[in-house]
Amino acid sequence: MTGPVSRRGLLGLAGAGAALAGAGAAAGYGVAREPVAAADDGVVAFRGVRQAGIVTPAQDRMHFVALDLTATDRGAVRDLLRRWTAAAERMTAGQDTADDGALPGNVYAVPADTGEAIGLAASRLTLTFGVGPSFLQKLGLADRRPAPLADLPAFQGDRLDPARTGGDLCLQACADDPQVAVHAVRNLVRAGFGVTEVRWSQLGFGRTSSTSTGQATARNLFGFKDGTNNLKAEEPDLLDQHVWVGDEGPEWLRGGSYLVARRIRMHIEPWDRSNLDEQQRIVGRTKGVGAPLSGSNEFDLADYAATDAAGPVIPDDAHIRLASAQANAGARILRRGYNFVDGSDGDGHLDAGLFFVAFVRDPQRGFVPIQRSLAKSDAMSEYLEHNGSAVFAVPPGLSGPDDYWGAALLA
Amino acid sequence: MTGPVSRRGLLGLAGAGAALAGAGAAAGYGVAREPVAAADDGVVAFRGVRQAGIVTPAQDRMHFVALDLTATDRGAVRDLLRRWTAAAERMTAGQDTADDGALPGNVYAVPADTGEAIGLAASRLTLTFGVGPSFLQKLGLADRRPAPLADLPAFQGDRLDPARTGGDLCLQACADDPQVAVHAVRNLVRAGFGVTEVRWSQLGFGRTSSTSTGQATARNLFGFKDGTNNLKAEEPDLLDQHVWVGDEGPEWLRGGSYLVARRIRMHIEPWDRSNLDEQQRIVGRTKGVGAPLSGSNEFDLADYAATDAAGPVIPDDAHIRLASAQANAGARILRRGYNFVDGSDGDGHLDAGLFFVAFVRDPQRGFVPIQRSLAKSDAMSEYLEHNGSAVFAVPPGLSGPDDYWGAALLA
Repeated sequence: MTGPVSRRGLLGLAGAGAALAGAGAAAGYGVAREPVAAADDGVVAFRGVRQAGIVTPAQDRMHFVALDLTATDRGAVRDLLRRWTAAAERMTAGQDTADDGALPGNVYAVPADTGEAIGLAASRLTLTFGVGPSFLQKLGLADRRPAPLADLPAFQGDRLDPARTGGDLCLQACADDPQVAVHAVRNLVRAGFGVTEVRWSQLGFGRTSSTSTGQATARNLFGFKDGTNNLKAEEPDLLDQHVWVGDEGPEWLRGGSYLVARRIRMHIEPWDRSNLDEQQRIVGRTKGVGAPLSGSNEFDLADYAATDAAGPVIPDDAHIRLASAQANAGARILRRGYNFVDGSDGDGHLDAGLFFVAFVRDPQRGFVPIQRSLAKSDAMSEYLEHNGSAVFAVPPGLSGPDDYWGAALLA
Repeated sequence: MTGPVSRRGLLGLAGAGAALAGAGAAAGYGVAREPVAAADDGVVAFRGVRQAGIVTPAQDRMHFVALDLTATDRGAVRDLLRRWTAAAERMTAGQDTADDGALPGNVYAVPADTGEAIGLAASRLTLTFGVGPSFLQKLGLADRRPAPLADLPAFQGDRLDPARTGGDLCLQACADDPQVAVHAVRNLVRAGFGVTEVRWSQLGFGRTSSTSTGQATARNLFGFKDGTNNLKAEEPDLLDQHVWVGDEGPEWLRGGSYLVARRIRMHIEPWDRSNLDEQQRIVGRTKGVGAPLSGSNEFDLADYAATDAAGPVIPDDAHIRLASAQANAGARILRRGYNFVDGSDGDGHLDAGLFFVAFVRDPQRGFVPIQRSLAKSDAMSEYLEHNGSAVFAVPPGLSGPDDYWGAALLA
């Protein structure tokens, strides 16, 4: 397979779909390879040891959707997950959801693909699947629930909107083209009709997390580089320690991870009225290059013991100090957040912020302590409002051509 | 000026900002040139005969904001428009809103720029300014209101949400990088504090209008190419006829245009259950190449008289027939629409659709007849819900280095 992949609709070559599916599959499953980089054709391998979309270098855009089950028949859910897997694999390869899906030869057929991605490249699309605590509950699988797969505790200052919180399962679509991500989510949502319905969804742009050392750190809507110290794809030992579920987890989740999502509204108006010094002391980094206040380059190790005449160089309530591994019994996260602006709030302001997504080995140990510490003492909290929250277990990658999302859990 | 333009924050070169501002200005004002194409550095000229962002080849993303006046003192408004113009010109050149705006040398200063675009290129940012009927009313300028600057009449089926409708003025930011568009709107909104506040705002992706013959027609969320027949930058005579306000307009608006915005929710779920033939007959075009049903290529002229055994080849209630110039006394529009997905609707569906923006010489003659015809008979109406609407007068471009948005109107 050479050259950029186009949708079958424009390719117009009989059999091309099948050929691509074959190539995509051969590149991925059963091989001890993590889908770190996309091939030159913009296709990120769908099958592999891990699900794509975790350590994959963060794409430019995200469309995240949380769904609820409207059916609790395990057979129906299994059937949907099989169909989702097949469609997801095709879409990540830059194809329609089915052969001739967007443009069926028989014009009296309902198209199997909605068509808005005809002619668009694969755009490094990844689709990542997870299940929430309520998924297992509703399907009578509570005995398979690992302890860390539980709703997060309430944090100080949380103002969670039930319409943006929880969900039986989630699909995370990341791509360099938002229309490709939206197309993928929309077609999977559509395929779920009768079994699932949308609970909430979130679009993000301007990735604020680099998941690979090859990426520059992007800026959040406070204007600061964000997530400098978080884990990267190139740190496999640390990922094993902090991100991938090990032998402590149930078999269906071993090698997978947990996804923690938080919709964080940022009160940009008061932030914009604070001076540069105040902003930098709240973050603990310089706004320009993003260096810790104790250093001069972005990746300098923060020296939390450093003091000057005024006290600690990195203040006690600085965000990076409270979020640091040192302050949280060594806890570290892989972060995949995106900025959002969701119109206005009806009160004269933009509804803007950060859609925070982290992958951790155990949310209770890896995320809760950090968030508890931030919620309690972070000087930044004054400017933040957490109004959405969810946690999902993200199974490992698909192990062979017949494997499908959730197969091991539902077996 | 060579090479891509970076934000001053990263350039770190004293005087670079001023040099860039000079270059940007020299390229644009007073010259009888329309800002059709961006220079290689991704900078679209800000000054010129027309405002940029109308016939400029449609960028990939849009952030549109409608604002209301919170002050009605003409002097305060004039001062804001001067400040907006200066900041807008800088941002379209890939700079901070002010010299050292994001990173003031004095850390105890409040940054004049919010910083999230540090290091990002100009990204073909355009900022387009308009005023609504209520702007003139509130400022005691009702005698300067041209008749076409009036709220649109109610159309059959409209379900307008007041929180997405109207506005005293508007700013349209288009860019190839959404963070650049968001940064621009956010900084202008911020500068307006005390004089304006956000009424509503809308983000769009996946431009569904090509404003230039050099662009391929993009697809809307029904999966169809959209806007094939609309006017293009390369048709100056037709633009004079249908888009630019001529001698019939007041002096402050001559050479400008009117912007009509409609937020059109698309009910994608029932659409997705219709078969390909039905979809094509509703649109009047094929879904693949986008040819009129009477032809075989996208740009074939539609033959509305063509019949076959079943009747008109392009049905009487087909969208393209009812929207056509032939059906609307020759009315044609310049279209600059974007797809949107704004999360979910709380009812298990995605809140998705088209943010329709058109530029016309006279909304009452150029838009109302088309929309009335569509609202009444368009087979597509069953799948659409217009829930936001606004009309703005868009003055001509800035004529010299001291000119600013709205100067001629407020003089």
